Amino acid sequence: MPNRKPAGLRVAVVGATGLVGRELLKLLEDRRFPVSELIPASSGRTAQKVPFRGRRLAAPAVDEKLLRSCSLVFFASSDEVSRKLAPKLARKGIWVIDDSSAFRLDSRAPLVIPEVNFPAITKGQRLIAGPNCTLTGLAVAANLLRCQYQLLEVRLASYQSVSGAGREALEEFSKQNGLLSKTWKALSSRVPVLPRLDSAALPQQIAFNVIPQVGELDSEGHSGEEVKVSAELKKIWGMPGLKISATAVRVPVLRGHSLAVWLTFKESLTPARARQILRRTPGVRLADPYPTPISLAGDGAVHVGRIRQGTAPNEICLWIVSDNLLKGAALNSVQIAEGLLSRGRLVPGI
Amino acid sequence: MPNRKPAGLRVAVVGATGLVGRELLKLLEDRRFPVSELIPASSGRTAQKVPFRGRRLAAPAVDEKLLRSCSLVFFASSDEVSRKLAPKLARKGIWVIDDSSAFRLDSRAPLVIPEVNFPAITKGQRLIAGPNCTLTGLAVAANLLRCQYQLLEVRLASYQSVSGAGREALEEFSKQNGLLSKTWKALSSRVPVLPRLDSAALPQQIAFNVIPQVGELDSEGHSGEEVKVSAELKKIWGMPGLKISATAVRVPVLRGHSLAVWLTFKESLTPARARQILRRTPGVRLADPYPTPISLAGDGAVHVGRIRQGTAPNEICLWIVSDNLLKGAALNSVQIAEGLLSRGRLVPGI
Repeated sequence: MPNRKPAGLRVAVVGATGLVGRELLKLLEDRRFPVSELIPASSGRTAQKVPFRGRRLAAPAVDEKLLRSCSLVFFASSDEVSRKLAPKLARKGIWVIDDSSAFRLDSRAPLVIPEVNFPAITKGQRLIAGPNCTLTGLAVAANLLRCQYQLLEVRLASYQSVSGAGREALEEFSKQNGLLSKTWKALSSRVPVLPRLDSAALPQQIAFNVIPQVGELDSEGHSGEEVKVSAELKKIWGMPGLKISATAVRVPVLRGHSLAVWLTFKESLTPARARQILRRTPGVRLADPYPTPISLAGDGAVHVGRIRQGTAPNEICLWIVSDNLLKGAALNSVQIAEGLLSRGRLVPGI
Repeated sequence: MPNRKPAGLRVAVVGATGLVGRELLKLLEDRRFPVSELIPASSGRTAQKVPFRGRRLAAPAVDEKLLRSCSLVFFASSDEVSRKLAPKLARKGIWVIDDSSAFRLDSRAPLVIPEVNFPAITKGQRLIAGPNCTLTGLAVAANLLRCQYQLLEVRLASYQSVSGAGREALEEFSKQNGLLSKTWKALSSRVPVLPRLDSAALPQQIAFNVIPQVGELDSEGHSGEEVKVSAELKKIWGMPGLKISATAVRVPVLRGHSLAVWLTFKESLTPARARQILRRTPGVRLADPYPTPISLAGDGAVHVGRIRQGTAPNEICLWIVSDNLLKGAALNSVQIAEGLLSRGRLVPGI
């Protein structure tokens, strides 16, 4: 039957040439998402092609009219682009899944991690936001714990990979790593004090370093990332009164964000009991004794280990690792779309 | 006047060829510590020479008789070596400054950071222990705060450099870094999932990774490092009832240990007030807005930044970085010796 289109949806990916966009395309292909036609779009600054189902597709600059012909549009681009286009498309009845931070705290947009709060997508809404990549691991991992025990306080220190800062940061990391590896080897048997290199994409050199700043620092000294973690976690869990303190730190890792977390509950809770609950928590995989960014090996689940008592019997420590490009971004977006499909909210045409 | 020895002390350094030993020699030289004769000693497994005052000295296997001829012996070697030799020498009246963990929790040995608790060295004691490199930064930084406000709880997540794990770990790091940099560059524009390499010196590959395990894990899930941090901090501060929870993590950094810390007090305390107190805390340098391992640049002070409110008005967050080979080890030991000199407890001969 020639010229008959495959059953499926016209799907656009805005930001298709970016780090998250490329993961999105791969997931749509690998998970056999019913795409009849894929429309990749980019900033249009470079003429990059993107791979999909064995072909290499052009990803030209965003064409709003073309997007309006789709049933589903993923945004994996800047806040600016999302802000300009996403609401317009949603008003036309197109499903929009936005991975930027533009609408995450907008009361009209649900902020969704499917395992945690899919029902936040109520009737009439078309614009759905996906959360910041750093809090996703915690929001998934501690979801059943906080449902069964009264969670009062959360403290976390992050170990965030460079891919979370985008392509330029990765390229800079690679260059710095090459330069400093040579310096290191050229020096004597004393451990060298490495020179400080200039940096453009990050606040400081990241190779052989850790940087306790992700985003701008505000007047109270919190970084943009720390503010997001706190505000978005409260919204996703529906716990506006939760006390949260985060320290967000960039580390020289390519992909995978790790979190050292303290959860303080009203009631006592043994690590053994916490482990039982974690074992049944959707989206969580227990790692014995612990996961690391490298041990994740591209797995999309949230990996949890080092389940221990904290400063008191009502406090549990966790070590959480998840792939910032997958569960922290692209995979979460695709899972939202899959949820819409399975609930009949999004129906592939013929 | 030929053959007249310079005024000073016969000083031995056991473990002189190690990472900390080499820093010790350099500090003794740079700080003009009154050494009339330096006796370097090592495991004797290799025939390495060590630099001191422009000469290269042999560092043969430990000769107990030779050590007994000294007034001061630094141990920067294994717990085993310290356990075997340090008490014997101390009983002979020789000052012993031990950087191993062998005697840190021994009630007969003071555990000393000069800025914090020099008076712990009471009369008759000759064996002095220096603390674990991870807690040193915190013990120095928060010392005046905890003296002026009632400290109830401490939580910390560490970002520990590979030099803290010794020379083999560093060599492994270098090899892994070389191998994986090639893999990274060889792959496509997607961020690669790096392969997992074997590791002998650390629990897992450290290049492009973070490892939430420093030391062995005990039956409650705490690592050796976490147990040390808690026990040693309580001893140094003389606060046996303090509640401490630590998560110790190795990161791909050459030198410099960083800490994300939450300090919970009985009373409220603003970040501005905390900053005032930190500014007058001996051994502390404020960094605006924060220090990093690379920005330390070999400085021996404890650098503190990102002073913020935590989960409540009675909680302060700090970001602390100190050089694990200097203030965390060699410099602290030399400062102890300098304290003994300035107080007339250790007297250079003619």
